Amino acid sequence: MKIKVLGIPFDSNSSFLRGPYLAPARIRLMATEGSANNYTEEGKEIIAGQDYQDLGDLSFSSQDPQKAYEQIKSAVSEAIADGSKLLSLGGDHSIAYPVIEAYALKYGPLHALQLDAHGDLYENFGDNPYSHASPFARLLEKGLLKSLTQVGIRTLTQHQREQAAKYKVNIIEMKDFTMDFISALERPLYISLDIDVLDPAFAPGISHYEPGGMSSRQLLDILLAIKLPIIGADLVEYNPIRDYHDMTAMVAFKLMKELIAKMK
Amino acid sequence: MKIKVLGIPFDSNSSFLRGPYLAPARIRLMATEGSANNYTEEGKEIIAGQDYQDLGDLSFSSQDPQKAYEQIKSAVSEAIADGSKLLSLGGDHSIAYPVIEAYALKYGPLHALQLDAHGDLYENFGDNPYSHASPFARLLEKGLLKSLTQVGIRTLTQHQREQAAKYKVNIIEMKDFTMDFISALERPLYISLDIDVLDPAFAPGISHYEPGGMSSRQLLDILLAIKLPIIGADLVEYNPIRDYHDMTAMVAFKLMKELIAKMK
Amino acid sequence: MKIKVLGIPFDSNSSFLRGPYLAPARIRLMATEGSANNYTEEGKEIIAGQDYQDLGDLSFSSQDPQKAYEQIKSAVSEAIADGSKLLSLGGDHSIAYPVIEAYALKYGPLHALQLDAHGDLYENFGDNPYSHASPFARLLEKGLLKSLTQVGIRTLTQHQREQAAKYKVNIIEMKDFTMDFISALERPLYISLDIDVLDPAFAPGISHYEPGGMSSRQLLDILLAIKLPIIGADLVEYNPIRDYHDMTAMVAFKLMKELIAKMK
Amino acid sequence: MKIKVLGIPFDSNSSFLRGPYLAPARIRLMATEGSANNYTEEGKEIIAGQDYQDLGDLSFSSQDPQKAYEQIKSAVSEAIADGSKLLSLGGDHSIAYPVIEAYALKYGPLHALQLDAHGDLYENFGDNPYSHASPFARLLEKGLLKSLTQVGIRTLTQHQREQAAKYKVNIIEMKDFTMDFISALERPLYISLDIDVLDPAFAPGISHYEPGGMSSRQLLDILLAIKLPIIGADLVEYNPIRDYHDMTAMVAFKLMKELIAKMK
Amino acid sequence: MKIKVLGIPFDSNSSFLRGPYLAPARIRLMATEGSANNYTEEGKEIIAGQDYQDLGDLSFSSQDPQKAYEQIKSAVSEAIADGSKLLSLGGDHSIAYPVIEAYALKYGPLHALQLDAHGDLYENFGDNPYSHASPFARLLEKGLLKSLTQVGIRTLTQHQREQAAKYKVNIIEMKDFTMDFISALERPLYISLDIDVLDPAFAPGISHYEPGGMSSRQLLDILLAIKLPIIGADLVEYNPIRDYHDMTAMVAFKLMKELIAKMK
Amino acid sequence: MKIKVLGIPFDSNSSFLRGPYLAPARIRLMATEGSANNYTEEGKEIIAGQDYQDLGDLSFSSQDPQKAYEQIKSAVSEAIADGSKLLSLGGDHSIAYPVIEAYALKYGPLHALQLDAHGDLYENFGDNPYSHASPFARLLEKGLLKSLTQVGIRTLTQHQREQAAKYKVNIIEMKDFTMDFISALERPLYISLDIDVLDPAFAPGISHYEPGGMSSRQLLDILLAIKLPIIGADLVEYNPIRDYHDMTAMVAFKLMKELIAKMK
Repeated sequence: MKIKVLGIPFDSNSSFLRGPYLAPARIRLMATEGSANNYTEEGKEIIAGQDYQDLGDLSFSSQDPQKAYEQIKSAVSEAIADGSKLLSLGGDHSIAYPVIEAYALKYGPLHALQLDAHGDLYENFGDNPYSHASPFARLLEKGLLKSLTQVGIRTLTQHQREQAAKYKVNIIEMKDFTMDFISALERPLYISLDIDVLDPAFAPGISHYEPGGMSSRQLLDILLAIKLPIIGADLVEYNPIRDYHDMTAMVAFKLMKELIAKMK
Repeated sequence: MKIKVLGIPFDSNSSFLRGPYLAPARIRLMATEGSANNYTEEGKEIIAGQDYQDLGDLSFSSQDPQKAYEQIKSAVSEAIADGSKLLSLGGDHSIAYPVIEAYALKYGPLHALQLDAHGDLYENFGDNPYSHASPFARLLEKGLLKSLTQVGIRTLTQHQREQAAKYKVNIIEMKDFTMDFISALERPLYISLDIDVLDPAFAPGISHYEPGGMSSRQLLDILLAIKLPIIGADLVEYNPIRDYHDMTAMVAFKLMKELIAKMK
Repeated sequence: MKIKVLGIPFDSNSSFLRGPYLAPARIRLMATEGSANNYTEEGKEIIAGQDYQDLGDLSFSSQDPQKAYEQIKSAVSEAIADGSKLLSLGGDHSIAYPVIEAYALKYGPLHALQLDAHGDLYENFGDNPYSHASPFARLLEKGLLKSLTQVGIRTLTQHQREQAAKYKVNIIEMKDFTMDFISALERPLYISLDIDVLDPAFAPGISHYEPGGMSSRQLLDILLAIKLPIIGADLVEYNPIRDYHDMTAMVAFKLMKELIAKMK
Repeated sequence: MKIKVLGIPFDSNSSFLRGPYLAPARIRLMATEGSANNYTEEGKEIIAGQDYQDLGDLSFSSQDPQKAYEQIKSAVSEAIADGSKLLSLGGDHSIAYPVIEAYALKYGPLHALQLDAHGDLYENFGDNPYSHASPFARLLEKGLLKSLTQVGIRTLTQHQREQAAKYKVNIIEMKDFTMDFISALERPLYISLDIDVLDPAFAPGISHYEPGGMSSRQLLDILLAIKLPIIGADLVEYNPIRDYHDMTAMVAFKLMKELIAKMK
Repeated sequence: MKIKVLGIPFDSNSSFLRGPYLAPARIRLMATEGSANNYTEEGKEIIAGQDYQDLGDLSFSSQDPQKAYEQIKSAVSEAIADGSKLLSLGGDHSIAYPVIEAYALKYGPLHALQLDAHGDLYENFGDNPYSHASPFARLLEKGLLKSLTQVGIRTLTQHQREQAAKYKVNIIEMKDFTMDFISALERPLYISLDIDVLDPAFAPGISHYEPGGMSSRQLLDILLAIKLPIIGADLVEYNPIRDYHDMTAMVAFKLMKELIAKMK
Repeated sequence: MKIKVLGIPFDSNSSFLRGPYLAPARIRLMATEGSANNYTEEGKEIIAGQDYQDLGDLSFSSQDPQKAYEQIKSAVSEAIADGSKLLSLGGDHSIAYPVIEAYALKYGPLHALQLDAHGDLYENFGDNPYSHASPFARLLEKGLLKSLTQVGIRTLTQHQREQAAKYKVNIIEMKDFTMDFISALERPLYISLDIDVLDPAFAPGISHYEPGGMSSRQLLDILLAIKLPIIGADLVEYNPIRDYHDMTAMVAFKLMKELIAKMK
C-alpha cells in the first residue's frame, strides 16, 4: 500500500489569525534538523521516499475560497486515484472539506474521527461556506460521512449542539473524555486531526487557545489504541507564527510519523 | 439573581513581581478579540450586560495597603448590598481579604474553597499585614470563615502547616489530590481561585512558578463537579507581564465564564 | 550522612544544541531570587550550607571529551570519598558516565533508575564515545550497573531496542507508563534524572523537544513514591537558552530540593 | 478645531499575516496601563475626551473587501463632515484607500505624505483591488492625490518603480534618506503612517520584517520637523500578534500622541 | 585609587513594574557565562578582585522605603569612607537619592550627569517621597547637586518642566540631542545611568518602554567622549523580567566595564 | 559570470552556543514564505535558478573540525573551479578559513573585508585551531590575504591587538566608524560578513550579544557604497535558536540578495 504526503498551505478561510499556510515547510524541517529521530513510539522507522512519497506542496495562485476548494479536491482525487493513502498537511481546517469529499467520491461515505477543540459544524460563519468553522457541516449536508465521531470538543455553542443533533454526530466532549469511543470506530476510517485538540500548553503554535484540552500523551495514546486500519488523514491548524522554539512543530512532526505508521 | 463583575487592579501587596493589576483589562479583551465564543463547557452563553453586569475597575488613588483594603471592602459591600453575587477580578491575592470580609459582614462567616499553589496563611510576611501571602490568615484570625478548604497546595512551610493546624484548615495538597473533597463542601460557598493552582505549563502568566500543579482540565473538572450554588468568587494573580500570546488570559477568560455560570 | 552538590557545567558532548553548561548557575539563582521557598513537598526545609554542602562548579580548561571525562570522574571520586552522597547538576547527560563510574569504583555496580525521554544507549553516536547519546551504553559495557531501569522513554530506535535487549535494560516506555516499577527498585539505588523526561510543555528549557512526556506532577509523584534511600543522583539537560521566564529553572530547583531530601 | 480618533479594526486585505485588526484596542490600553504619561515630546498634554474625541471602533459584520471599503469611506465622511480632523487607527494599510477618498470627496485632491517600507502601488496584487499592497495605486488612478511623497521605502519592484514614474510619485528611498523632503511638503497635507517604516528592531509588532528602516528617533524627528498643519492622518499595520511586551504598542501610542498634537 | 561595586537590589519604589531587584545577580552572570570577554572598547581589561572589589549585594530585611533609604545611604558612606570610588548596581532609580546623598556628605555638592528617558523630578509621585520618579527632586531640594545635566529625556510633563526651571537643570532632550554638553561638564562628576535612556530596541529589559531613545552606540560614544575623571556612578533600572535572551544584561555588563574603566 | 550559493551548516567550532548550522535552511525559507519580494534595494531581481545556482547544503558525516575543514575547502574549490563566484552561507565563522583558502588557492592571496563584532584573530582559542575565534589568524599565518580590513569591531583583547599589529590588519573599530575605508578597498575583493557586526537590536539571532554595533541601515549602506566587483562572500553566524519571529532570518535573506547583486 502506497502512502503519500501532500502539503496544502492554505489558510485564507481562517476566522481569527493566519499562519497555518506556513506549516508544511516547517514540519518537514523537523525531520532534517536533527533533534529527533525518525522512529515511531512503536518502533517503526518512517523515512521520506521509502515509507511515504512526499508530493510537496500545492501552489495556490489565488486566495479565492472556491477556487482553492476545487484545486484541493482535484489534487487529492489525483493523489489517491491509484489506491494510495494520503496524509494531508494543512493549512487550516477548511481543507478537510475538499480532502474528505475527494475520498468519498472514490470510496463512498466514510466513517470519520475528528480530533478537535471545536465542532466546525457552523452552517454559516461570516458568510463564507468554506470557513474553517464549517467543513464538517458541509460534508454532513452532502451526505459524505457515514458517521462522524468528534473527540476533545470544548467550545460548543447552542447552534453547534443543534447541528450535532441534526446530523447525529457522536461528540465526546473533553469534559467527559474516556477512551471508550475507540472500540466503536468503524471502517473505512478517516482521521482529521486538528492540533488544537491539545491543550495550548502542549501546542502553543495554534490560532485559537482553548484551555482544558488533552495532553500530547493522551493524544498519542488514542492513536496507538486505534487498531483499525485508516484510509487517510489530515493534520491541520499548526500555526508557526505562535510557536515557541518549534515546540508545536515537533508535536506535528511526531503526529505525522504516527499517522503514517497507522496507514501502513 | 443578579451577577456582577468588578475589576480590582491592585497588586502592591505582591512579594515578588507586579503585573496582576493589568489583569482585568486584559481578561475583558479576550471576550472581544474573537478567538473564542461566549459559551461555557456546559452550553450556557455568558454575555456582558445580559448575564452579568460589568462594574468596571476600581480606581486606586494611592498604593497604600490599608487604604486599598478599605476601598475594596467598601466597594464590595456596596456591590452586594442588593443581594447580587460578585465575581472579583484581581489583582493579587491580597484582595481576597477585604472582598471576603465584605461578604462575611453581610452573610456571616462563609465556607470558602481556595484553589491555590500557596497557603497564603502567613501570620507575618515582610511586616505587611495585607501581603498577598497572608489574606487567609487575616480572615481566619477574625473568624470570618466557617471553614476553609485549600486545594492544589504544594509549597507549605513549617509555619504554614502550623497555621493550618491552628485554624483547622482542610488542605488537599497537590501530591494527594483527588476529587473527594467536593462532596464535603457546604453552603454558603465562596470560591477564591488563584490561577497559580495550575501548573505553570498551563498558566505561564503568573508571578510564582511552582511546578507540579493541576492541569486546566482538572481545574475545569473541579468547577463542573461542584453542584452547590456559590455565593461569590474571585479570580486572582493573573500576571500579563509573563504571559505567552495571551495563553493565560484565555484561561482566565474561560474560568470567568465558568464561575459566572456557577453563580446563576 | 553528608550531602554535597556539584555543578558540572559541561555540554560539549551534546549532539544538537549547547546550553546545559549554563544550568548550574541558573538553578542556584532560583534559590535566592525569592519567588519560592526552600521547602519540599513533604515539608522538609533544604538550605545550602546546612542541609547540603555546595561544592560550586567544576572548571573545564578544555572542551576535550576525554579530559572532561577524567576530570569529572576524579572530582566525583574525591567528593564521595568520605562517604558523602552527591547530587551532580549538569551539563548534558554525558556527565552521567564518569559520575556513575566514580560511584561504582567506590561501591561496586549500582542499581540505576534513569528518568529520560531517550535511551542514551547508542553504541556509537557521531564517533564520540562520550556523546550524550551513549553514557548508559558505556556504563553497561563496563559492567558498572547491576540493573538499569529506564522510565519515560519515547524515542527508541531499532538499535537502541537491541542494546536494551542485550544488556537486559528494564524499559518502561511512556506509552506504557504506570508506577509499578517502583516496587521493584533495589539498593544501592542511583537516580539519573534527565529533565526531558517531562513533556516539553512542562520543561521548555531543554535541547530535544519530544512530545508525549510526563507531567511535572507525575515526576514529583515518582520521586515521592520511592521509599528506598538513594546513594546519589544527577540532574541533567536543563538548557537555559530555550527556557521561558525561568519556568524550567524552577522545575530544576524543585527537583533539586526533592532529590536532596531523598538522600537524607 | 475638533480632532477625532477612529479605530478601524480591519485586516482582511493583508497578503501575509493577520493581526492588525487587534491594534486599536491594544493601543488604547497603553494610555491607561500607566507606564507612560500623556505628554508629547514638545510638552503638549493629549487627553481623550478633552484633546480629542474617541469614536471607538468600527464594527465589521463581514470580511468582504468591497463592503468594508464602503463602510469605512462612509464612516470617515460622517466623522469629518463637521470639519473635524480625523486620526484613523488601522487595521492594515488597505484602509487608507477609503479613508483618503472620503477626505478628497470633501476637500478635493490632497497632498499626501506616506511613511512606509513599501510603495503599496501594485496595480494588481492577488486579484484583490483592495489589497494592502495597492491603496495608493487606487487613489492615484482616481486622481484623488495632488501629490504623493513616499519616505522610507526599501522594497521597490520593477512594477512599482513604473507605477511611481507613471504617477509622478516622489519617492525618498531609505537608502537615500535625508530630511530635505520636508520643506517641499504642501497643504492640505495628509499623513499616512505605516509603522513598518521603522526598522523591525524598533517595531517588532508588524507583519512584514524589512530590515534597513528608520529608527524611532528619526521618525519622531520627521514629525517634529513638519511645521505645516495636517488635515488628517492614519496609523496602520501595527500587529500585536508579533509584538514583544507591547514594545510596538508603545511606539504606536507615542505616534498617536504626536499626530494628534500635529493636528491641533 | 580603589574601585568598588555594590549591588543594591531594591525596586519597591517603582511605579509600574518590579524586576530591577533581580539585576545585580544577572549582570554578574554575564561576566562568567563566556559569550564576551572582559575588555573595554579602549582595550582595558576589567577583572573582579583585581580592577575592582565586588562588595556583593545589600540585603534588605524590609521593603519600607525609608528604611531602605537609610540602609543604602549608610552602606555607601561606609564604602566610600576610605576614598574609594563606587559603582552602584540597581535596583530602580530611587537608589540614586541615598547613593548621591552619601557622596555629597563626604565631598560636598556634586556635578551630576543623568542619562535617562525620564526627568525623575516629581515633587510628589503617588505620595511616596522615595519614588523612582523623584530622586533628583529630593537631591535638588536638599542642595546636594551643584549642577544637574540630564541627557536623553523624552517624557517631560508640565510639572517636570517647571521643576527643571526652578532648579536650573540643564536638560538635553533626545529630540535636540548633540554631544555638545560634554565639554561643559565639571568636576567632581557623578554619572547616574538609567538604562532606559536607550531606545527599547536596544534595551528591552526595562520597565518603561519610551520610544525615541539613543542607540547603544550613542551611549557608548558619550561615555568614551567624557575625559573628566568621574567620582562615582550608578547603573539602574535593568529589569530582567522583560529581557530577551539576556540582551539587556549584556548591555548592562558592557556599561559596567566602561564605567569602571572611567573611574580608574 | 555564474554565481553559486552553498549552504555550509557546520557550527561545531563555536565557543559558546550552537545553532548556526540551522541557518541555511531557515534563510532559504524566507524566500518562499511570502512576506518580502526578491528585489534588492537598487532594483535588481534575484531569483534562484536564474540569477544564481543553489548548490544546496554540504552534508557533514562527522563533527571533526579537521575533516570539516578539508571537506569545505574541497567543496568550495570544486564550486569555483569553473570561474563561478560563490556565496557561502554558514554555519559559524570558522568556515571562512577553508572557504577563503580555497579561493586563494585558485586566485592567489585576496583582499578581504571582514564585517564583524569580533576580530577572530586568536592564535589559540581553547586548543582548537579551527575555532570560530581564529579563522583570520589561520589565513594570515598562511599568507593567504594580501590585506585584511575589519569593520565594526568592538571586542578587542590585548592579544588580538597584538595579532592585528603583527599582521598589519586594518581595523575600523565601531567606536571610530566612518565610511572612509571604502575608498581604500582593492581587488580582488572578498567579503566575509559576520551578522553580529550588527547591534543585537537588529539581529537578535546570533550567539554573542555585543552592544554598540551598527544598524541594518548602516550595513546596507556599506554594501551599496562598495563599487568594486567582489569575487566571493560568506554570510555567517546567523543563529535561529535565538531569533525573534525570523527577524534575523529576514536580515540574512536581505543581505544574501544584496551580496549576490554585488557579485553580478
